[in-house]
Amino acid sequence: MIRIAIDAMGGDFGAEPIVTGVIDALKEYQFHAVLVGDSNVIKQYIPQNFSQNISFVEASEVISMADGATDALKRKDSTIFKAIELLKEKEVDAVVSAGHSGATMSLATLRVGRIKGVLRPAIATLMPTTQDGTTLVLDVGANVDCKAEHLFQFAVMGEAYAKEILNRNHPKVSLLSNGEEECKGNEVSKEAFLMLSKLNSFVGNAEGNQVFDGSVDVVVCDGFIGNILLKTSEGVADAIGKIIKKHVKKSPLAMAGSVLMKSVFKILKKQVSYDEYGGAPLLGVNGCVIISHGKSNAKAVKNAIFQAINFADSNINLAIQKRLAEFKENA
Amino acid sequence: MIRIAIDAMGGDFGAEPIVTGVIDALKEYQFHAVLVGDSNVIKQYIPQNFSQNISFVEASEVISMADGATDALKRKDSTIFKAIELLKEKEVDAVVSAGHSGATMSLATLRVGRIKGVLRPAIATLMPTTQDGTTLVLDVGANVDCKAEHLFQFAVMGEAYAKEILNRNHPKVSLLSNGEEECKGNEVSKEAFLMLSKLNSFVGNAEGNQVFDGSVDVVVCDGFIGNILLKTSEGVADAIGKIIKKHVKKSPLAMAGSVLMKSVFKILKKQVSYDEYGGAPLLGVNGCVIISHGKSNAKAVKNAIFQAINFADSNINLAIQKRLAEFKENA
Repeated sequence: MIRIAIDAMGGDFGAEPIVTGVIDALKEYQFHAVLVGDSNVIKQYIPQNFSQNISFVEASEVISMADGATDALKRKDSTIFKAIELLKEKEVDAVVSAGHSGATMSLATLRVGRIKGVLRPAIATLMPTTQDGTTLVLDVGANVDCKAEHLFQFAVMGEAYAKEILNRNHPKVSLLSNGEEECKGNEVSKEAFLMLSKLNSFVGNAEGNQVFDGSVDVVVCDGFIGNILLKTSEGVADAIGKIIKKHVKKSPLAMAGSVLMKSVFKILKKQVSYDEYGGAPLLGVNGCVIISHGKSNAKAVKNAIFQAINFADSNINLAIQKRLAEFKENA
Repeated sequence: MIRIAIDAMGGDFGAEPIVTGVIDALKEYQFHAVLVGDSNVIKQYIPQNFSQNISFVEASEVISMADGATDALKRKDSTIFKAIELLKEKEVDAVVSAGHSGATMSLATLRVGRIKGVLRPAIATLMPTTQDGTTLVLDVGANVDCKAEHLFQFAVMGEAYAKEILNRNHPKVSLLSNGEEECKGNEVSKEAFLMLSKLNSFVGNAEGNQVFDGSVDVVVCDGFIGNILLKTSEGVADAIGKIIKKHVKKSPLAMAGSVLMKSVFKILKKQVSYDEYGGAPLLGVNGCVIISHGKSNAKAVKNAIFQAINFADSNINLAIQKRLAEFKENA
């Protein structure tokens, strides 16, 4: 049975949504949950008579958003440190954390280690498309300054994720740029373009809008740009929602219309909400680590757990290792 | 009277929307329009008896989107080459072009030249905010690889535009980054952060979403990231529109609702449409050049002309020159 360690206290809203998400997941799928944190707090949110497949690991501290990521390396009694240790000691198959993402990443990279051949792990995230599908974007925050070689490795990891986890047999891998043409790009991306051309799955440069139109499966960029892309998308969606709300309030007619359109807005909200997509897999570490949004609700946690189960159940890390070795031999 | 040269043929839809936009502008404001292109074609779109304040300069070629920007430097009978020459020779005070933006930029930079002290001109664009205002983002495409010094100069130029053209006396200038904290950023942006700290108007790093929330007036980034930000925004807005439309079609109730909400969608469309904001000023060249969207309709052209009039009527270029000299002295 797959064993998953969950940082039960690290999210912005404390233990409740996280534990509720774990219980919901346990009701739907057989796995073993190791809840890391203060078990006295955690147990409040576990229904009575519900005890199957749950165990506890005590941890007295929570790394807060205000703490530095390097700080986390020293605080050995924190929830995230203990969860990662369980993965390191192979007492669990995966970690799900809605806590400090920088700390999770640093601890995972340094304590669990990288897959052989991987220079830098990357955080990947799924973005919704108008084709009812998703696009995998990486890196979205782990690495702010990247060399072409790093972007190439992100492409290999993204390709593996698309194949092994998203079941896309022939994924289209692209490089984020300021134009589709090969001549477009900055110094690093142009060099990366040449390296990515070695991948059969590489379809060339993608522009920002292609993240959302379903034309590609994987979009590769550095973590600085990936973060800006994520925040820009959230900002636009949020702004559109606010503008609509503001003007609906001014017109009784429009207000009636918005009531009739409620079902559509609900679908839209669902489609653009990260709850549906679980968390962001940290690719390149020698294990399975899913980083959830700090504001995760129970549904987001449940979906992150299912994502962890799929990941732990797959051969993705071996696939990444083999693929990188292949290119190294041919280099 | 302010004289404006307009590339009458360079847009994606030919002369019609451009000439119509010029006529609409002339009806509202006294300026002299110099229409550059094939006057036989252009004259078709000018109403009879309407001849005040229009003159023509013949040009037989149009640079197409498929042409390289450097190509444009050699084709001396193109509409954009001739329009820029008029500016160079001070026969006009400004140029408005909906043609090849790379060609416009290269020609402006090389033929008209840069403002004293400016290392690289930048393309600036106005983005709508939820506060019914706008945020100026630069660079959005002119410079893909930037040094900290370039970003600093973009900040100085953006500050000047906000003060002189947008009439914001105390503009908030920010640096696009992957987090608000000073420690966030990539190598170049961190170095730029220190340089920008010399500006009183500098309020620190801004995240992608802050472009749309009205919290800052100016957002500085390199042209690679600026282009990705623009395309991402367009992509998200487009995706949301498509998702709504798709699901409205499936439900008669929602369809009725969307009819009642029509006025709100209209306001939204207007607010996010580039027609309203005219064009993108090219900052840093020794003159006034407004780059319009290739798909500009008459309204967009009219607004770009008004933007050119405001620009030509201001002291922005002198302000930029003085400000840069000030910092050079103190360096």
